[in-house]
Amino acid sequence: MIIVVRPGATEEQVNEILEQLEMHGLTAHISEGTERLIIGVIGDKSRLSADSLEVLPAVEKLVPIMESYKLASKAFRPEGTSFDIKNVTLGGKELVIMAGPCAVESEEQVESVAAKLRACGAKFLRGGAYKPRSSPYAFQGLEKEGLQILRRVADRHDLLVTSEITSENDIEYAADYLDMIQIGARNAQNFRLLSAVGKSGIPVLLKRGIAETIDEWLGSAEYIMSEGNYKIALCERGIRTFETATRSTLDISAVPVLKGKTHLPVIVDPSHAAGKAQYVAPLSLAAIAAGADGLIIEVHPNPKAALSDAAQQLTPEAFKTLTDEIRAMSVILGRTYPE
Amino acid sequence: MIIVVRPGATEEQVNEILEQLEMHGLTAHISEGTERLIIGVIGDKSRLSADSLEVLPAVEKLVPIMESYKLASKAFRPEGTSFDIKNVTLGGKELVIMAGPCAVESEEQVESVAAKLRACGAKFLRGGAYKPRSSPYAFQGLEKEGLQILRRVADRHDLLVTSEITSENDIEYAADYLDMIQIGARNAQNFRLLSAVGKSGIPVLLKRGIAETIDEWLGSAEYIMSEGNYKIALCERGIRTFETATRSTLDISAVPVLKGKTHLPVIVDPSHAAGKAQYVAPLSLAAIAAGADGLIIEVHPNPKAALSDAAQQLTPEAFKTLTDEIRAMSVILGRTYPE
Amino acid sequence: MIIVVRPGATEEQVNEILEQLEMHGLTAHISEGTERLIIGVIGDKSRLSADSLEVLPAVEKLVPIMESYKLASKAFRPEGTSFDIKNVTLGGKELVIMAGPCAVESEEQVESVAAKLRACGAKFLRGGAYKPRSSPYAFQGLEKEGLQILRRVADRHDLLVTSEITSENDIEYAADYLDMIQIGARNAQNFRLLSAVGKSGIPVLLKRGIAETIDEWLGSAEYIMSEGNYKIALCERGIRTFETATRSTLDISAVPVLKGKTHLPVIVDPSHAAGKAQYVAPLSLAAIAAGADGLIIEVHPNPKAALSDAAQQLTPEAFKTLTDEIRAMSVILGRTYPE
Amino acid sequence: MIIVVRPGATEEQVNEILEQLEMHGLTAHISEGTERLIIGVIGDKSRLSADSLEVLPAVEKLVPIMESYKLASKAFRPEGTSFDIKNVTLGGKELVIMAGPCAVESEEQVESVAAKLRACGAKFLRGGAYKPRSSPYAFQGLEKEGLQILRRVADRHDLLVTSEITSENDIEYAADYLDMIQIGARNAQNFRLLSAVGKSGIPVLLKRGIAETIDEWLGSAEYIMSEGNYKIALCERGIRTFETATRSTLDISAVPVLKGKTHLPVIVDPSHAAGKAQYVAPLSLAAIAAGADGLIIEVHPNPKAALSDAAQQLTPEAFKTLTDEIRAMSVILGRTYPE
Repeated sequence: MIIVVRPGATEEQVNEILEQLEMHGLTAHISEGTERLIIGVIGDKSRLSADSLEVLPAVEKLVPIMESYKLASKAFRPEGTSFDIKNVTLGGKELVIMAGPCAVESEEQVESVAAKLRACGAKFLRGGAYKPRSSPYAFQGLEKEGLQILRRVADRHDLLVTSEITSENDIEYAADYLDMIQIGARNAQNFRLLSAVGKSGIPVLLKRGIAETIDEWLGSAEYIMSEGNYKIALCERGIRTFETATRSTLDISAVPVLKGKTHLPVIVDPSHAAGKAQYVAPLSLAAIAAGADGLIIEVHPNPKAALSDAAQQLTPEAFKTLTDEIRAMSVILGRTYPE
Repeated sequence: MIIVVRPGATEEQVNEILEQLEMHGLTAHISEGTERLIIGVIGDKSRLSADSLEVLPAVEKLVPIMESYKLASKAFRPEGTSFDIKNVTLGGKELVIMAGPCAVESEEQVESVAAKLRACGAKFLRGGAYKPRSSPYAFQGLEKEGLQILRRVADRHDLLVTSEITSENDIEYAADYLDMIQIGARNAQNFRLLSAVGKSGIPVLLKRGIAETIDEWLGSAEYIMSEGNYKIALCERGIRTFETATRSTLDISAVPVLKGKTHLPVIVDPSHAAGKAQYVAPLSLAAIAAGADGLIIEVHPNPKAALSDAAQQLTPEAFKTLTDEIRAMSVILGRTYPE
Repeated sequence: MIIVVRPGATEEQVNEILEQLEMHGLTAHISEGTERLIIGVIGDKSRLSADSLEVLPAVEKLVPIMESYKLASKAFRPEGTSFDIKNVTLGGKELVIMAGPCAVESEEQVESVAAKLRACGAKFLRGGAYKPRSSPYAFQGLEKEGLQILRRVADRHDLLVTSEITSENDIEYAADYLDMIQIGARNAQNFRLLSAVGKSGIPVLLKRGIAETIDEWLGSAEYIMSEGNYKIALCERGIRTFETATRSTLDISAVPVLKGKTHLPVIVDPSHAAGKAQYVAPLSLAAIAAGADGLIIEVHPNPKAALSDAAQQLTPEAFKTLTDEIRAMSVILGRTYPE
Repeated sequence: MIIVVRPGATEEQVNEILEQLEMHGLTAHISEGTERLIIGVIGDKSRLSADSLEVLPAVEKLVPIMESYKLASKAFRPEGTSFDIKNVTLGGKELVIMAGPCAVESEEQVESVAAKLRACGAKFLRGGAYKPRSSPYAFQGLEKEGLQILRRVADRHDLLVTSEITSENDIEYAADYLDMIQIGARNAQNFRLLSAVGKSGIPVLLKRGIAETIDEWLGSAEYIMSEGNYKIALCERGIRTFETATRSTLDISAVPVLKGKTHLPVIVDPSHAAGKAQYVAPLSLAAIAAGADGLIIEVHPNPKAALSDAAQQLTPEAFKTLTDEIRAMSVILGRTYPE
């Protein structure tokens, strides 16, 4: 950390800073510039709150040098992380697609689309069982029954299961049905849930909060990793901006930025970002072109009859066309995609 | 809801819309404009997902006419809500101030500031026991012990207690110590927690999510109210924008906007919005001038030694000066503030 | 336009609305819903300000049905626009790349990179002559001399020239040197400049304002088109959001959104959006994959010695690698790119 | 400036940094931390572009220590600036209110409201003559005739005149009619216009750009000041965020932030920020409470008949009530307001 001293600070005020540092076992390295006095702080800063320095009258500003996450940082595993869930590798050369309806509505609904997803190369079946909806009067999901449906259908079609969990109280139960837990955007900084998921050891698809910076997002990953669970994939799903033409603004730059800052695999969710089916294919191709390790896409056997987010779900036919394009593109990018 | 039909839609495609409406027991009211066909939808729309219309090829856009919340809307109680917690009224003529340290650090710390807060007219003692921190390595709060400290100190000084709860599992326990539960910005759309707080019947201070629109915020309030708990005050604490000079951007306009949209009392938190003590007083006065029913302010006996967010905490002396100005201002605005 | 009437409005207040409409030669189409009275407005609304309705006490809200632009809308030319500048077609099957240094520094500098750009398939030479810099003390560009350098170098290498103009007073002069005028993000709503560029008839590369919605951007295009100049390409260059990991947030979704809303060609500028050279290649590929008609990329013979925005400029070698990938990808997407 | 060296950088790469610094006459001050090497840069950095360092492989990040503006900084005039325009002082103890219709529509319209404004203590008459509108088909203002009307009416009522200028070509003409030039939000970074206004020497009301940070805004002020014109007041008028309940989000914190960063007077425009008349009074009081030196408010003799932005204009009666409250509040805040 670097401390920029306010011009005009008295010697006594500067000493106050130095005492604070000494009190916490830190070394000060003073450097006099043309217009400002700068103090470099050396040592383990984890026990000193930046705020208790910021409040001192001589402090103009504090400049952090290190990120606040360690396990999630690129430096921790410069070669990148890839991990297996059963027979599927996340973060490897092969692109991984997760697909399925927005919400699980019935076993028939999920069954009717599963074989088609598998045939297009999807490796994960997705579907909402616990649906966080902004109105308490909207369809809230089939809950436990939804997870059971996903598991049964997935097992019949050699697919893995991923679905969102919204409470620490559901994790134990969920472990019986899920191969990968999704943490949704609204719970991206629900640290109690993150810690609980970390303790569970179940692989996690960690969505970005709607207004979470990339550094905060990696801080959320660190919560899970600090409990010993390193099987995390990060999922970019759009951020909130002033633009309303799409539901969220897909931050496509997050893909290369994450590739530089962390070793964790990166998945993109074009369906929630766009909010409209017609934008899902171009955004999916863009995500792969930008370097994503996979996609999570909403596909519904009959979007017009869907109970939630119909507008953003692809038909199985549109999904087939898209995966064919992804397969062709993977070659150019040095990746592979299942035949 | 109003449906704008895409120019060039075929009669068959328009009929598809009409069939969807009929299937859900809704009446269509067709109106032909110069350049667009418009369909007004009449009836109970709660069982028809907007998305299952949006996906139809003839639909250009859907325009909602009604808000998705009812109990939280101004129309539900046009005269406004005021409610009592013990001997304190929220939403009445008297301005209510909640004050205390950012984090509860020890009984001595809280005790040393409580009498001063009370003497300045504060009615609630606040202090973080469960601290949601963006790094897992930062101080996470004293948890249960923190709540017990707050209760003991508050009882000695005729203060009420408000503190944040971050998990549905802590509510039962919390009820023994708290007069008002805070839901923090990061849990503003943790719907499981909102429902649980709703069922508890304990009064709630509902902070706005960092990227929550005012309508979504009222949707969060609706979650609590739909469980029968109407004792809610809304707390504006700043939103995330591109500006970094303050930690968040205090949305001062939210105060008059809420006064028009809802009957619930409005509290402002200038400390978290600003992130710096020097901005707390001007923002507090601005909030009162804009029509807020109260404030929640961080005051620490010795900000320099604070374990978290030192930079944004007022000294007891600065708090005294501020409350004197608030008292003077309350007269001009037709409000009162305790002597 | 649709008028939603406030619940509880008196008959007299509703009549006030109807009179306003009649006074402006508009027809009202009244429709009574379960909870709201709705008035559809039919006729030419261009002479009635929405505001003079919004101010009436019976008006709860106004819902515009039509966009405020006409010439820029997809409906005006559903088949899409492609136009020629000399021997180059914008908006056709072939992808068009514009490349060159951020700022024109000297004839040697531009000359040393031009042949390489041409060999990689670039059709336009770009380079800043008038540099809008946020500090008055930063390098402001070579101005007129910069344009002359661009022209001379481009002519030697069979390239076209595009560069930014920042004042209506420079247009006449610029016409002698430029094949396409760039309007920069900071002047995206400088309507005087837009009108002047429209009158000039010179093709325009219209960058999106840093906080301009897509609809406002098309409104800016409409300013130019309403003067009779239809040779416009829209350039997405990133928007301002809360995320600071990249200089701006590239709104990749804008590409498919624009393809649905307008007939104008779409170009993407990954260099300004990213602000860092290492992100330019992945974002370029993403833009092409999303359906862009071309790119504008910063390439500098020696980025380390550049006078402005060195960090975001590619080396000629990196540009060669990128264009080879773009060529390969164009085939999959049904586009072409020069050998 | 401080350079953080990437971990793992070779000695050769670090030397490359040191050579760049030496080449530009700068001194390096090296400091070895526990986990990073830090280089402090001492000397006049104005000739070295940060970018030409950022591009070097050994540079992890650059941390600016100084702001890029000097004349606009608080340090330049710690005591604050107040300046006179005729008999009115901006930035003094007395609060200054500028008021008038959004757009000048006719001499009768302006005349009918001017005496009332003066009687309520307003010192400036405002009104749009050149109206930047997002659609080319909307009313664009009376232009020169509008300025003449403002001048004649103001002179009859002992008022000063302020109005927006949108092109450097109108400044010479404007000087005959205006006491203070407004630079609008859309031209906040039109640096050619800023320089021209700086050269003119006419006092300037510089509005904040809709997505301009406070530091960029002070950079815009620096453009004007660097031409020798120090008579600038800054006008906060709302920024663009995700919230759509108000037209812009009034950044009330900008008032105390500016008071800490600059010596220039601060004016607030609640009318454009809110976009609705009903929010103007609470936001005006909030602005004064937060420490603003004045307000610019839209008042129209008959808002229902206004040609532009009717919804946000106060009636003369509402303006009278508001200024009475401002007068009462000024006493508490140690300010004055004309009887």
